[in-house]
Parts: sequence; structure tokens; C-alpha cells
Amino acid sequence: MKNSFGQSVSLSVFGESHGSCVGALLSGMAPGIGVDEEYIKARLALRRGIDGISTARREEDAFEIKSGVFEGKTTGTPICITVPNGDTRSRDYAKTRFLARPSHADYTAFAKYHGYEDYRGGGHFSGRITAGVVAAGAIAQSALEGIGVLIGTHVKRCAGVDDAPFCDFPAEIKALEGSAFGVIDGARGEAMKDAILKAAAEGDSVGGVLETAIYGLPAGIGEPWFDSLESVLAHALFSIPAVKGVEFGAGFALADMRGSEANDAFFAEDGAVRTRTNNSGGINGGISNGMPLVVRCAVRPTPSIYKEQQTVDISTGENARLLINGRHDPAIVHRARVVADSLAAVAVCDMIAQRFGTDALKG
Amino acid sequence: MKNSFGQSVSLSVFGESHGSCVGALLSGMAPGIGVDEEYIKARLALRRGIDGISTARREEDAFEIKSGVFEGKTTGTPICITVPNGDTRSRDYAKTRFLARPSHADYTAFAKYHGYEDYRGGGHFSGRITAGVVAAGAIAQSALEGIGVLIGTHVKRCAGVDDAPFCDFPAEIKALEGSAFGVIDGARGEAMKDAILKAAAEGDSVGGVLETAIYGLPAGIGEPWFDSLESVLAHALFSIPAVKGVEFGAGFALADMRGSEANDAFFAEDGAVRTRTNNSGGINGGISNGMPLVVRCAVRPTPSIYKEQQTVDISTGENARLLINGRHDPAIVHRARVVADSLAAVAVCDMIAQRFGTDALKG
Amino acid sequence: MKNSFGQSVSLSVFGESHGSCVGALLSGMAPGIGVDEEYIKARLALRRGIDGISTARREEDAFEIKSGVFEGKTTGTPICITVPNGDTRSRDYAKTRFLARPSHADYTAFAKYHGYEDYRGGGHFSGRITAGVVAAGAIAQSALEGIGVLIGTHVKRCAGVDDAPFCDFPAEIKALEGSAFGVIDGARGEAMKDAILKAAAEGDSVGGVLETAIYGLPAGIGEPWFDSLESVLAHALFSIPAVKGVEFGAGFALADMRGSEANDAFFAEDGAVRTRTNNSGGINGGISNGMPLVVRCAVRPTPSIYKEQQTVDISTGENARLLINGRHDPAIVHRARVVADSLAAVAVCDMIAQRFGTDALKG
Amino acid sequence: MKNSFGQSVSLSVFGESHGSCVGALLSGMAPGIGVDEEYIKARLALRRGIDGISTARREEDAFEIKSGVFEGKTTGTPICITVPNGDTRSRDYAKTRFLARPSHADYTAFAKYHGYEDYRGGGHFSGRITAGVVAAGAIAQSALEGIGVLIGTHVKRCAGVDDAPFCDFPAEIKALEGSAFGVIDGARGEAMKDAILKAAAEGDSVGGVLETAIYGLPAGIGEPWFDSLESVLAHALFSIPAVKGVEFGAGFALADMRGSEANDAFFAEDGAVRTRTNNSGGINGGISNGMPLVVRCAVRPTPSIYKEQQTVDISTGENARLLINGRHDPAIVHRARVVADSLAAVAVCDMIAQRFGTDALKG
Repeated sequence: MKNSFGQSVSLSVFGESHGSCVGALLSGMAPGIGVDEEYIKARLALRRGIDGISTARREEDAFEIKSGVFEGKTTGTPICITVPNGDTRSRDYAKTRFLARPSHADYTAFAKYHGYEDYRGGGHFSGRITAGVVAAGAIAQSALEGIGVLIGTHVKRCAGVDDAPFCDFPAEIKALEGSAFGVIDGARGEAMKDAILKAAAEGDSVGGVLETAIYGLPAGIGEPWFDSLESVLAHALFSIPAVKGVEFGAGFALADMRGSEANDAFFAEDGAVRTRTNNSGGINGGISNGMPLVVRCAVRPTPSIYKEQQTVDISTGENARLLINGRHDPAIVHRARVVADSLAAVAVCDMIAQRFGTDALKG
Repeated sequence: MKNSFGQSVSLSVFGESHGSCVGALLSGMAPGIGVDEEYIKARLALRRGIDGISTARREEDAFEIKSGVFEGKTTGTPICITVPNGDTRSRDYAKTRFLARPSHADYTAFAKYHGYEDYRGGGHFSGRITAGVVAAGAIAQSALEGIGVLIGTHVKRCAGVDDAPFCDFPAEIKALEGSAFGVIDGARGEAMKDAILKAAAEGDSVGGVLETAIYGLPAGIGEPWFDSLESVLAHALFSIPAVKGVEFGAGFALADMRGSEANDAFFAEDGAVRTRTNNSGGINGGISNGMPLVVRCAVRPTPSIYKEQQTVDISTGENARLLINGRHDPAIVHRARVVADSLAAVAVCDMIAQRFGTDALKG
Repeated sequence: MKNSFGQSVSLSVFGESHGSCVGALLSGMAPGIGVDEEYIKARLALRRGIDGISTARREEDAFEIKSGVFEGKTTGTPICITVPNGDTRSRDYAKTRFLARPSHADYTAFAKYHGYEDYRGGGHFSGRITAGVVAAGAIAQSALEGIGVLIGTHVKRCAGVDDAPFCDFPAEIKALEGSAFGVIDGARGEAMKDAILKAAAEGDSVGGVLETAIYGLPAGIGEPWFDSLESVLAHALFSIPAVKGVEFGAGFALADMRGSEANDAFFAEDGAVRTRTNNSGGINGGISNGMPLVVRCAVRPTPSIYKEQQTVDISTGENARLLINGRHDPAIVHRARVVADSLAAVAVCDMIAQRFGTDALKG
Repeated sequence: MKNSFGQSVSLSVFGESHGSCVGALLSGMAPGIGVDEEYIKARLALRRGIDGISTARREEDAFEIKSGVFEGKTTGTPICITVPNGDTRSRDYAKTRFLARPSHADYTAFAKYHGYEDYRGGGHFSGRITAGVVAAGAIAQSALEGIGVLIGTHVKRCAGVDDAPFCDFPAEIKALEGSAFGVIDGARGEAMKDAILKAAAEGDSVGGVLETAIYGLPAGIGEPWFDSLESVLAHALFSIPAVKGVEFGAGFALADMRGSEANDAFFAEDGAVRTRTNNSGGINGGISNGMPLVVRCAVRPTPSIYKEQQTVDISTGENARLLINGRHDPAIVHRARVVADSLAAVAVCDMIAQRFGTDALKG
């Protein structure tokens, strides 16, 4: 079935954690977009996370652009990027092959693939797959920047600690590109890291909330029904393995507001129509209204913890106990923010290409 | 662009609030599914809401099945259903044609359709469109019931009042079919109605949260990436005009949990694999795990309120003030729950048909 | 499964021959396209064919535009058109319910729909479905004419008689709009009609070849691989029930040419790149080259004949003999040409909207 | 835009002739299908053609399966295959960079990609791309063989010489796997080769006709309208760069038949419904009828010839003369037959998976 997202611009992913590589196929990007390999590298480095917190697996992330780029620019034909795997310790997994890790995909993969799945390191369900997504997303983000659309995600909340809110979109989005942990307020980021390390010391893991801003999107993009901007972005963001909630603008808080509080009053400014508040997150009736698009993702805590857990041996159907080995992150929310940027960028590229044609991304 | 949802089973919508009808085209349903017109009628009645709270517009909802049903059963070919419009007072809208209603789609529709949109009563953006969706959804729900999959939505929260939680899925889902307001605990529903009427008396509106349960879905449905069950269901649910947030299982609450709290321990029972808790909402790695699928939608308060609002005249670009006339609901959350059922049913039919083939829905 | 065609602009069909109506849902047309009901009526009249040759069923074809058109122009939202059925003689079919008509879809429909299909008059497989297609296609053709793209189909060959070839595209395409039988050379059309009547007198039917020209398409439309212009147009045209072959440019004749004959030499003229010959039919590498696009369809003879035929009773699996009653056309090639125009128009609208954006069709 | 084909099973292609590799991404194959690397190798060898006739470029075709296969079997997740490029002589092309080769895609690529396309060796338009297609197709063919569906293509006609017709499908299909040139009657193949060499000696090229048989497909697969079996197969086959015509069963010959000749009488045999003739090519109303599916492709002569040709310099818009260098095939029809098999196999896998579910291909 579908392993791809998007219509005019589309993204497919492939690969397994302990196979030869992971990768992505990005199609429909306009020809002539500059591809900056240093930028891709920098994005992959952000995705790897930060020392002391992120997984001990030292991934090289030496990506290879296999097609669709010529003389430093997109050709307009499909862009295949692979990220070779290295430093895999497959034996860590063989022992517990049939002990389904709670809240991991082991059991559901077994139900779907009947035991033929590559179980090593989570196989195709590994967060490793996101390396290809981030590499492809970097090209999408470059294209968007060329036409004045900026995308940035911060760790809005982690382990019970809140980051500062977005106040000045373009500047903060730019600053986030350089932030290893992905917060607007560095001090809060330090508090988050302390809380993560505390959980890690207890063999546990934490979750958080990501907040993505899409700045510079013109009004009039999206569809009234099944390709509402919310539908399309949520479709993309819910592909991130740990995301269990997506909300736009004031999101779930709208449920407790009255209409008079929730409504975003329009006003005219400098020839543009703007809103006083942005509870709608830049979207009315599924279509962009020209205000910054704001979307948040709930990221569950990493299911890999170092405490004994109850489970089932799926080869026998017997109850069992499991103690996970291997190298695992006590938090992935700061890594996932790079993936959120990437998928949002691909989704927005697609919506712009659908709306304005396949050359629109060339800038 | 896309006005349709789904791959093996698909749903398209059409119509405008003050045109001749609204409708839906449902394709890919297996042949031989019983179509019970009384059930469709009952579902449409639920969608119309309840006297005293829901809009004064008395819609007949005299649906017509135009194709795809023969001798009381689906034929397997596309099912077109129209719901004729009546009792429209288009003049209510002409006066305020260019005064974009805050948090409505008037401005974004103008940006997208350049003024050619049918503005009367919200046109294609009207909640009226959901009549076609509910009629089609009733057929999808019948098909699912035939194969043991039950879908039900309750108003989990409205105007600050919480309903009781799901405790016994099949019984409560069945009971919700007969509940006009859509709550598990009738007393809480009365409290919600009181709160709605209070807001209405102040010319204001309220929002709420819907909770949908999908019971009986086998394990192994969904895709690891871009057609994760979360992606597909969220895509469908975010099409509902007022929905601004979607979460699965514990959803946003997961962000503040530790892994050891959040993880759903597996255990074997009667030859099946089950989980002790259901924080994952029945989905691991994008794929169903056999537990009840639980998804919640944040529904914003109706943007139509009877207080003066600030806006812009989109024909002149000047600031303006707007006082809305017409008939509007102080709450739509109890009506939206019927739409949530319907879209969830279509999405689940699609995923089952993709997984097990086009005859799988016949039962 | 799929009952729709197209991506940015899409067409779905619905209905059964003896149900309440047939119809089409056309989505993604730009807002602001003039909808001329007289033109739609004229196109439906051409589709009905000509007295003395075409079916005795007097279809009113009183189409109804149910949505997506407001004040005479497209709104940009989905356009649903129904064409009510009348004058149906369902009893003609009941007697032979289980005697699969040779080269009709009775047996394959039974294999797919397990007997739940509406068998009366061919049900969803009836040529009657094309009424909705033609009505929708008329809107697509209007849009294309507004941006300088003309589409016309002539009966290139019927019952062994050839029409004159295209010589002067824009003029001949325009003239074909007014031709009831759809030939460039009226005298050849008369010869075709004589040959058709001769076959009819013998209880037999004839086939033919349609040739469609698409004039004014700019260079650069189409995809190198799976959405080559040939792929997309053939996909659409092979949906016409009687079409069993599709070829572009010199088509099958290319198989016997040498490269030096087949190659279309380029030359510069008035600042444009043109080709001396057009053996490629306006497409190189799946992409338009700015020359007229020429595509031909082989149309099989109507399978309904008045001679006794050998068949199987699909309810018993026994051999049987069948003598068809009812009203049937001895030729449909002249009617199918209107459908070929329509589907080509929708396909071209889709390719233009994908390439240049959703407003490109507004002109 | 779309570089992929298929819905439940899908195929995407990527790569450029003189880039690092070409490749394919095959998704949706059931888990547990045996992947025989020797068979893939053999198929790639057939695609390379035969000494003395096929291009002097010695492609290694050392394919690499990057994902989706584990311990010799498909996992059910996307299968990425790359075929590295070697032995490229890019300088051959630089000299004539802007001289659009007649009936090649140089000019149309320029119109679409604005000069950013990788022009070397035809870039993404090169027949080289088919190496990835054939590797992926080999897996699809293995899956089909496992469930009793055989696909084979012979060179039905080349350079004016006809092959023998199919008489005994399963045996002849099997024999074709071992035939380097791809004919049923070896003597006719020799005559074809002589005719090819004669054309080559004159600096010219030849075309031909491919005939593909799909044997063992059950009745009831395909859709009445936009995903008719003809539509889907033609969509796939018209992606092959040189194909300019596709016909099913008697195809264009049907245009000159009467209904009484064209109709395929049904009869019962061994509990199955069969037809006396197979002018419909195994498809009625877009749906398989259980008879062998027969489809033919017209393959144009290779546009690369060694005669001086008239063209335009697309950088200046001036008329020019072109003499092509490089290594080119005087015929590709025998190589294209392997591609036709491959694409037909992917299309049939998709249709079966849609019809019977994603496990149906596992056998």
C-alpha cells in the first residue's frame, strides 16, 4: 500500500535500521533549486541530537544523492537520497526477537507482515528512517526559503518544562536552525535537558510537544474538504512514529473557549488582511489566511526504557517479561522537531505546487 | 484539486448550502451490503441536532440514493446520494456579502476562488455539506457492523462539562446510536445543554471535544509511514470544518508522561494479545494492535455569534464592523459527532478494503 | 476501487442505465469559467447520435447541474451533474438476466459483483453513463477553448470507409462541433451511414476508428514516466467501454518504419520550434512538443447484435443460446467520438492544472 | 508530479543515464515472496539485448537491493533497487548539448525543465532507466508465478518480419524466458536480426510490435470505468519511452469487423466459463473474463540514427544540422519486451492486491 505522501510533490521512504541504508525519494520538486550539501549535513546533524542525551549509536549519516540533482541544482526529476547504515549491532535484537516491546511496533508488524519483517533495530519502523526524510526535507526547505516561506519547529514542552512562545517568527525560525536542542529560550532548554537526564538515570524516558511555525504562506492554499491544510499537514505529521496528537492554532484549548474569545477578528494593514489573534493557526475553512500557520505535535515518551516490562512472546503466545538492551534515547522530542520541519516543508511544497504549478517552487 | 478521500473505498462531497442540494459520492463499497433507508434517516436526524439548541433551519434531509443501490443492497458501483436543500433564506447573506465573518472561510474562499464562490450560507463551506457525508457514512457503518466493527462518538466535553468515559465499548457505542445529544451519561448531557443555552442567551457559542471509539478492528491494519492509521483518520477528521485538533489514545497527555507510565504492557488472554492500558489508542507504529481505537477531536466554538465583530470588507479592503444575522447554532459539537462517526467509518472501510480486498466489507 | 480519473482536475462517474439517473462529478476546475447550458445541451445531442442509426431509446438528457456553478460560472468547487433516466424498458432485460451476452460485461460483472449488480440495460456498464461524461466534458472543453486549446474528434473510419484526414486543425475542429455524424468529409460520412444501415439490416453491427486532435497545447506538459501524456490520455480513453486500441501520431504504423522515416525533423518558424512531420503525434518522451496532439482509438463493433449467439447461463453454468431483444445501435463510433472529446478535454485540463496551477484554466 | 504507478502495489523510478545509478522503488508487495537474485540477473541480461545488435555500452547491471528484502524474502516494506552506472562517455553528448535530437525528448525536456535537466545520455529519459524497472519487475513476476499467473512478451513483428503467434500460452511464455531475442519461432527471429543489421549498416533503425500474454488471471479483476484493466495496463505500457500504440485482443482489427465476427461466444468447459475466440483479449467491460489477456505495443524505431538530420539549436532558436555520435541500438524492440513484461507484472500485481488484499500476492 501507500508508502508515499503528496501529489504534485511527493515523498517516499524506504530502508531498514540494520539494512544497507535508509533513504527517501522526493519527486516533483521544480528544476533549478539550489541543493546545498552542507545544509543537508547540518540538518542531519541536528536530527542526530546532542551528546549525552541522544543514542550512543554513532551514525555517519554520509548521505548520497543518487539522482535528480545535476551541477548543484535540482533537475526536476525524482531525487533519490540514501543514507548508508553503519555501526549496527544486530545481535542486540536477536535474543528478544519475539518479545514484543510494549508500545513499539513489534507486535503490529508481526500481525501485518507475518514474521517476514526485518526485526533488527525496529527495521522499517526505526526512527532511523527519518534520516532520509530529513535529507529530503532540507531540499524542500531550501526551495521554500527561496520563495519566502520559512518553517521552524521548537520543543515547546519537554519533561514538564515549557519553552518560551514564538514572538517574532522569522527571527526565531532562523535562530532555531542554529540551535542544537531546538528551543527559543536556551535556559529552558537546559532545564529540559536536566529533566531528561534525570529520567534517563532512572531508566525511564520522557515526551514533549513540538510547535511548528510556517511563515510566509500566502492566503488561498488548501481545500475545503479532504485536502484541508489541516488534513494534509496532520497526515504528514502523524507519520512521525511517536506523534499521537496534532493541533492547529489554539487547538484543544479552543474546546473550552467561547466563540467571542476564539474568533480571530480581521483587520486591514498595509493593504493586507490580517487577524488580531491567531487562534485558528493561519487556517480558516481548510485554507490558509496569510497569518503564520502554527501546528503542534504531541510526542510520546520513547517506548524503549530500561525497566522490566510485561509482554507476550509472539512466537508462542505466552506471557513473558522483557528487559530491553541496546542503545536508546531517553527523549527524542528534540530530534523529532527536525523531522517535523521536514515533513511540514514537503507538505507545503506540495500544496504550493498544486496551487501555483510545478514551476512555482523555483522562486 | 482533491475533493475526495480514500483509495479502495473513497468519498467525495459536493454541493452548496443554498444550491439545489448537497451530496456525496461513495465508491468502492463491496457489493451486497444491505442499505437500510430508515437507518440513514435516523443518522440524518441525529446530525440535525436537537430542538432548542440547533439551528432554526428546518432541513428536510429527504435524501435520494441516485446510484449504486439495487433491490436494497449495494451493487459495488459508485453510490451517489443527494440531499436536496430547502428553506434557504439567501437574502440574509447578500447584505453582508463582502464582510468576512471572523474565523469563517469567507476571506480564504475569496482568496482561493477570487469571488466566484457561492457565498450564500457559506456555500461549499457550510456545515450543510455534512448531510451528504452522514448519509454515505451510514452505509459505511452498516458494512462495518456486518463484519463486527462498531464505531461510536460521544461528546466527551462541551462548554466545560465532561461526559463519563467509555467503559464498555460495544454497549456504549450501541447506546450512543439512540442518544439525541450523544453522551454516555445523560445527566452530564443535560448540564452541557444548560451551559450551551446560557452561552446562546449571551449571543455567544461554545466548543467541545469528541471522542470516537472504533471497536473490533483486527490487528495489522495501517501502514508504517504515510498511511499510518493515525494519518488516515486524522486526514478524514480534520476535514470536518470545526475540528482543530486530533489525538489518539492518551494523546497530548502522553507528552507529560514517562515511558514507564505511557507504555501499554502486552498480555495474552484467550489466545489473543491485548494490552493492560490503551494509551496508544489501539495503534502502534501506525498499525492497529487489536485494542479499541480511540481518537478525540477538538471542536472549536461556532464562529457565528451575535455580538458585533471587527472585520474587513474584502471588496474594498477597508476595516468594518459586522453583526451577523441568520440562524446559527450556539454549539455544533453534538451534531459534529455524527460526522466524526461517518468519516471514521469511511476511513476504516477503506483501510479494511485495502488490507483484505474489495469483497472484505461484504461480511 | 477507483471510479475517478485525474489529480488536479478529476472526473468521477456514477449511475446505472435503468436507475434514476447517470451522472458525473467534475472537481478542480478553476473558478470563473463560463458554463453555457446550451453548449452542454448541444454536446448531449451529438452524443445521442442520429436518427435512423442510433438507438430508438429517446433519452431526454435533461441534465441538472447540482453544484459548483453559480450565476453562470464555475465556483471552483466540485461540479455534480446528473442526467435523469427516462423511457427505460427494464422488462426487456429480465428474461435474459443470466444469459451472458457475448463481449458484453454481463459475465465479468457477475464475477466481480457476485450477482448484486444492477443488470438492467447493462447497469453501470451501459453506454448511458457517457451522458454524464459528455456534460462534464463540455465544461472542460469550454475552459480549454478559453485558453486557446481546441479538441475535436472525427470518425476516421467506420464500416470500412475512411474519412478525409485532418488538414487544417482549428477550422476542422470547429466544423466538427456542428457535424451530427462527426466527419470531415460529409460524402464519406454518407457512405459510412449506408454501410452501417446495410449491417443493421443484416442484424449485425460495425466498428471504426476515432481520431482526436488536441490543438494549441503548449510544449512542456506531461511526465517522463508514469504520467506520460500518452499514459494519461490512454488511461482516460480506454475507459470508453468499446475502445480496444489507442495510438499516438503514426502509432502502429511506426512499427514498420525506419528511424529515418519516423523521426520528426525540428525547424524554427516564427520564433517557435516545430516539426516537419508529426509521426510522434505531438509528444516526445511523454511530454508535449507544441505540435498538434493526435490520438486514435479503435472502437469495436457494438456487441449487441440480432443474431442468435452461443453463451452460458451464469446461474447454472450450462451452455445456452441467446437472441438479444431491446433497442441497440448498429454502430456507436459516431457517438463515442463525443465521449472521446470529453475525456481528452478532462485529461488535458488536469495536465494543464498540474503544470500551471489551479487557476490556469480560468484564462 | 507523478513519477509513480499503482495504488496497492506501486512502482517509482529514478536516476539519470550518466548519474551514479538508476533505480526503482517497489512498494506494497506482500511479505514472504522469495527474491531470487539469479532470476533478477537473468532478466537484466535479457534487457541488455544481444551482441552485435544491442548498444556497445557494456553495462554491468550489478543491481543492489537496498531495502525491503530480508533473508531472501520480501518483508512487505518498500523495496529500493539501484543499478549503478558505469562506462559512461559523457563527452559524447556535451558537444551536441543544445541540438535537439529529432523524436528524442531533448526539446520537450528543455521546455519542461528549463535547461536544468541532466542532458547527458538522455538523462532521466534514457532507456537506461528501464534497468531498475526490470529488476523490480522480476520480483513482481516471481510473486505472480507463485500464484499461477504467467506473463510473457514476444517480438511479434520487427523490421517487417512476423513471429509465430501464441498457440500454447504457458509453454511459450516459459520458453520466452530463455530466449535471448524473445521470439516464439527462432527462425523468424533470425530473419528479424538480419533485417536489423541491414538497417544498421545503412545507419538506420527499425521498430516493431510486442505482444504480451498474461495467463492465469482470474475473472473479475478491473473496474468498469477509470481503472479498467485496459486503462491500467495501457497507462503502464505507454510509460515505455518508445511505445506509441497499445491494443488489446484483436485491437485495431476490431474496427473493421462486424459484431458477429468480433463477439467472443461463451461456452462452459470443466466448470469454467470460456470463450471460443479471444478478440476481446481477456477483458470485457474493463474486467478480466478469465481468458488469457493479450496486449500489443507498437514500438517506434530508435530515434538515434547515423544520418544527418535537420533540427534546431534550442539555445539560440536557429535551424541546425545534427549528426549523432555515441553508441545506439538499431532496434530496441527485443529489449523493450523485457520492460513490457515488467510493467505488466507490476500492474497485474497492483490489480490483484487491490482486489484480494495485500496478502494475496504471497501465494
